[in-house]
Amino acid sequence: MSTPVAPLPEWLDAVRFDAAGLVTAVAQDVTSGRVLMVAWMNREALALTQREGRAVYWSRSRGQIWRKGESSGHVQRVREIRLDCDGDTVLLAVEQVGGIACHTGREHCFFRRLDPSSSQWETTEAVRVDPEQLYGPTTTETS
Amino acid sequence: MSTPVAPLPEWLDAVRFDAAGLVTAVAQDVTSGRVLMVAWMNREALALTQREGRAVYWSRSRGQIWRKGESSGHVQRVREIRLDCDGDTVLLAVEQVGGIACHTGREHCFFRRLDPSSSQWETTEAVRVDPEQLYGPTTTETS
Repeated sequence: MSTPVAPLPEWLDAVRFDAAGLVTAVAQDVTSGRVLMVAWMNREALALTQREGRAVYWSRSRGQIWRKGESSGHVQRVREIRLDCDGDTVLLAVEQVGGIACHTGREHCFFRRLDPSSSQWETTEAVRVDPEQLYGPTTTETS
Repeated sequence: MSTPVAPLPEWLDAVRFDAAGLVTAVAQDVTSGRVLMVAWMNREALALTQREGRAVYWSRSRGQIWRKGESSGHVQRVREIRLDCDGDTVLLAVEQVGGIACHTGREHCFFRRLDPSSSQWETTEAVRVDPEQLYGPTTTETS
C-alpha cells in the first residue's frame, strides 16, 4: 500500500468505483485523437492524476500505484479529465511524452486489428523502441 | 440468458475475459475520433459484434445481451475491431447512427469535464434528444 492522499477532494464523490475500488481509465492522445491505452485507477490514483497533472494508474498485476512513465520516462501529461454518464469510466486527454504508450514499445496498445477477410488478428503497428531499453531487462509497466 | 453463438470463432481465444467473463469495450467515432462510450462485452456479445457488424454489449445492470440501438435505433455500425496488448480491452471504430451514443440523449457519454479552476464537474454537452423519446418512459439502455 502507498500513502493515501488526504484529504481526498470532493469531486471524487461523483465517481463510482467498483467493488474492487477501481474505475476504468481511457487515455486518448490530445493531438492525434488515438486511444492509447486503457487501464485502471483507484481513488488515490485518480486524485494523484489530477493533483500532479500526469496519469497515475493502479496496477492490478502489481497491486500498487503506477505513475505512468516512472520507469520509461514516457509520462502522460493530463490536459483534461472527463467522467462518463454512469460515473464508472474516466477519459483522459493526454500528451504522450516520448510517443510510446505501450509497454511493448509501440505508440499505443491497440496494435492488433481483426482482419475482416481472414478473421485473424493482424499486428498493424511496429515496435518503435525495444522494451528492454524502456524498462531494463527485468521490470516493466503493466496494468 | 440468450442463445449462445455456436461455434464461437477462433479469434476469440486471444481475448482475455475477466473472472466475470467480460472485457472492456471502448467505442470511438470513426469520423470525429471522439470516444463515445465504454461498456462491457462477454464472449457472445463480441462474437455477435463481429458477425452482425454492429456493437453488441453485455448489460451488467440487466444481465443480458444488449444490441446497442435496439430501443433507440441509434445503432453503432462497427468499422474495425482492435484488441489491446494484454487482450482485455477491445476498441471499436464505429459509425454512430443518429448521432446519439448516450442514454441521457447526448452525443457521447463523457459530458462531464473536471474544471481545473473550480475542481468541480461541469457539464459540457447539451441533451440533444429527450431520453423518453429515445426509449419511452420506462425502458432505457444502460451498461
